Amino acid sequence: MTERLVVIGGDAGGMAAAAQAKRMRGDDLEVIALERGTRTSYAACGIPFFVGGEIGALDDLVARSPEEHRRRGIDVRLRHEATGIDLDARRVEVADLDAGTATSIGFDQLVIGTGARPLRPPIPGIDGPGIHGVQTLDDAQRLVEAAGERACREVVVVGAGYIGLEMAEAFCRRGSKVTVLDAAPQVMRTLDADMAELVLAAMAGYDIDVRLGVSITGFEPGRVVTADGDVPADLVVLGMGVTPNSELAAAAGLTLGVRNAIRVDRRQRTSAPGVWAAGDCCESFHRVLGEPTHVALGTVANRQARVAGINIGGGYASFPGVIGTAVTKICETEIGRTGLTEAEAVAAGFAVEVGKATATTRAHYYPGSVPITVKLVTERGTGRLLGGQIVGGPGSGKRIDTIATAVWARMAGAELIDLDLSYAPPFSPVWDPVQTAARQLA
Amino acid sequence: MTERLVVIGGDAGGMAAAAQAKRMRGDDLEVIALERGTRTSYAACGIPFFVGGEIGALDDLVARSPEEHRRRGIDVRLRHEATGIDLDARRVEVADLDAGTATSIGFDQLVIGTGARPLRPPIPGIDGPGIHGVQTLDDAQRLVEAAGERACREVVVVGAGYIGLEMAEAFCRRGSKVTVLDAAPQVMRTLDADMAELVLAAMAGYDIDVRLGVSITGFEPGRVVTADGDVPADLVVLGMGVTPNSELAAAAGLTLGVRNAIRVDRRQRTSAPGVWAAGDCCESFHRVLGEPTHVALGTVANRQARVAGINIGGGYASFPGVIGTAVTKICETEIGRTGLTEAEAVAAGFAVEVGKATATTRAHYYPGSVPITVKLVTERGTGRLLGGQIVGGPGSGKRIDTIATAVWARMAGAELIDLDLSYAPPFSPVWDPVQTAARQLA
Repeated sequence: MTERLVVIGGDAGGMAAAAQAKRMRGDDLEVIALERGTRTSYAACGIPFFVGGEIGALDDLVARSPEEHRRRGIDVRLRHEATGIDLDARRVEVADLDAGTATSIGFDQLVIGTGARPLRPPIPGIDGPGIHGVQTLDDAQRLVEAAGERACREVVVVGAGYIGLEMAEAFCRRGSKVTVLDAAPQVMRTLDADMAELVLAAMAGYDIDVRLGVSITGFEPGRVVTADGDVPADLVVLGMGVTPNSELAAAAGLTLGVRNAIRVDRRQRTSAPGVWAAGDCCESFHRVLGEPTHVALGTVANRQARVAGINIGGGYASFPGVIGTAVTKICETEIGRTGLTEAEAVAAGFAVEVGKATATTRAHYYPGSVPITVKLVTERGTGRLLGGQIVGGPGSGKRIDTIATAVWARMAGAELIDLDLSYAPPFSPVWDPVQTAARQLA
Repeated sequence: MTERLVVIGGDAGGMAAAAQAKRMRGDDLEVIALERGTRTSYAACGIPFFVGGEIGALDDLVARSPEEHRRRGIDVRLRHEATGIDLDARRVEVADLDAGTATSIGFDQLVIGTGARPLRPPIPGIDGPGIHGVQTLDDAQRLVEAAGERACREVVVVGAGYIGLEMAEAFCRRGSKVTVLDAAPQVMRTLDADMAELVLAAMAGYDIDVRLGVSITGFEPGRVVTADGDVPADLVVLGMGVTPNSELAAAAGLTLGVRNAIRVDRRQRTSAPGVWAAGDCCESFHRVLGEPTHVALGTVANRQARVAGINIGGGYASFPGVIGTAVTKICETEIGRTGLTEAEAVAAGFAVEVGKATATTRAHYYPGSVPITVKLVTERGTGRLLGGQIVGGPGSGKRIDTIATAVWARMAGAELIDLDLSYAPPFSPVWDPVQTAARQLA
């Protein structure tokens, strides 16, 4: 019996699920995908590199275009926005944004992949012109166009997290004078303060003015108003985090969970039968905290979508959760984190021990050997590895995967000491920096 | 009560144990270290980079000099060779190589760290002049001096393993015409043939003549004689593997094990009370095979030495074994391996499944993204990850640590698919290549 799958949202969460299910069921599954923008399956995480000029064309960030999806039998409808879901009638209300018409489409199965959007706290003027959140490629296009129209000497980035610092570097590369404002006393609140300090120190060599502990009271044309005075701004970029696009799901009666993300079970099923969700719009499970969390990352979206797609396709797959792994590069400094920071672990009630060491990325005598600092957090008593953080030069960041795998496998921190990691002078000192940190535990 | 610890061998196996024990026991432990060469605690794995000119001075490879050890209270005696061990009398016979005298030294505890030496199969002429094994820094010095004396246009490397190929690249950098000969039908027998093929293909762009399936019948001045004809050779470098220096231990009555390596237990104790061994001269335990093995690597030597040192120092430590992890770089190609290859697994009686994929080191659109091939081997039925291999461009090699950690933790291969690995465009595609390979399993 042929079923119809409707997908709301044309990026990873929806489309990877659709592609997976279609691959498994072929003609047995009709797939209609609704995307209110103009592109599908793109890498939003590449936007800062487009803005910074490291990537030539925005369409390079498209992993699979609407045409490619169509060739695989998916009926992609661009500029079509889902405006309502009727779970009883099993229909989606759809607005054709270009035609200005409305219609409705029935479904047997529904995937919600509506993503997330940049947070805009209720600060006066935050919705004014020249204040950009960056979530979609269409956002990026508007941002770069706006940057081109205005001379764009002065750019203010609000938020010193991953996105904020990546965007700051991007505008720095474009030749703008960049100021980063954050209310917190440190950059990157996903790191412990001592590790964030290393990031800030590494950024000192670049022409980015980072101001911490700054409270923004308003946005006005040409400037950002703060408790410490005005900051000139031809353009403002928001990097204050994201919130799930879950209003449509909520209005349909689906259960929401942490931070208003759509609640899903391990097979990516929402609270309604035959309705699935994947990606930035829905919850994940945090394996170390043992509770639901919301993580808006392309990796998680793709993994969840694969799981949803296999289940829709008639197979079995479960999503095992996340441990908060992330990596980024700010200027030449690489930053990785996984599991819980010391602060997060303490806040969650763990008593912890910490091992921290600064070593080198390669054998000390090998050309290109640069400092790397690794911090490990373990639970007191059990010795279980709860998390790790890395800040260092080229070659540092991806080492977080070793720690992530150990956290995932519930290894003890001390077990890292004699773990059989790879060594050769161009790659590592004889004790990998991760192991050097482990040797500092207790 | 003050004890005397005698150490035989001045490199990692002996000296790291001595340093660890001395740090714990201070004046309570007298330490005498005997080294027949002229240096201590050096990184032999750095030798190819010295030969190739990437490292300026041989002494850069010294992690801790005799003077540094002496400042920490260790009585280092260079050019002193242990010639016998009397376990009943608890004395070591010592030859002072420069003075030409012999003496004996009593011990309470003894660490044997005699290392290994290059294999020299009984081929006519193999002990002739101009045929160099490379194990110590003194060897390296002689090699480079010999290379300088002769015009050294033509260099033959015997053995296409790690050392052989690294030395081949090193002489290629020096401007020599390099020929690599190996009796096997593939390079790097520590890889499966399909992965070794990728290494060979990557080397094709370099001026190294690799001849496989070649049987050497003799070494004569100026040439290597093979079944397929003579190969001109101003200099020959042996890279045919190593054999443990365990004759002294055997003569003393200590039990030897696999490949004549000194048998040790998990605390690095030999078969005699108060006699320890660490490093290339002794056995390790292979965690995947579940049996003793012999691995001559600096990492293993340092880890075993730390364990021995803690135990001698009055603490408790056990060495958990190895899984055969290794990484190297030949020209621009990075090569990693861990656990069992497909061939090794089958030889050990496992029924296996294989997941293999070629992906890119970074997001496809990010500058510097280059191909990487990952192969995973799992046990049929249990799905347990048995090993992995990686061959690819810059950024590939250290990814083997993710696989190594998963093998170590006895994870299933399929569990890698949704493992929370780090992602950002400069570091990885959204599915890490390790995960892309895992998705090909089954």
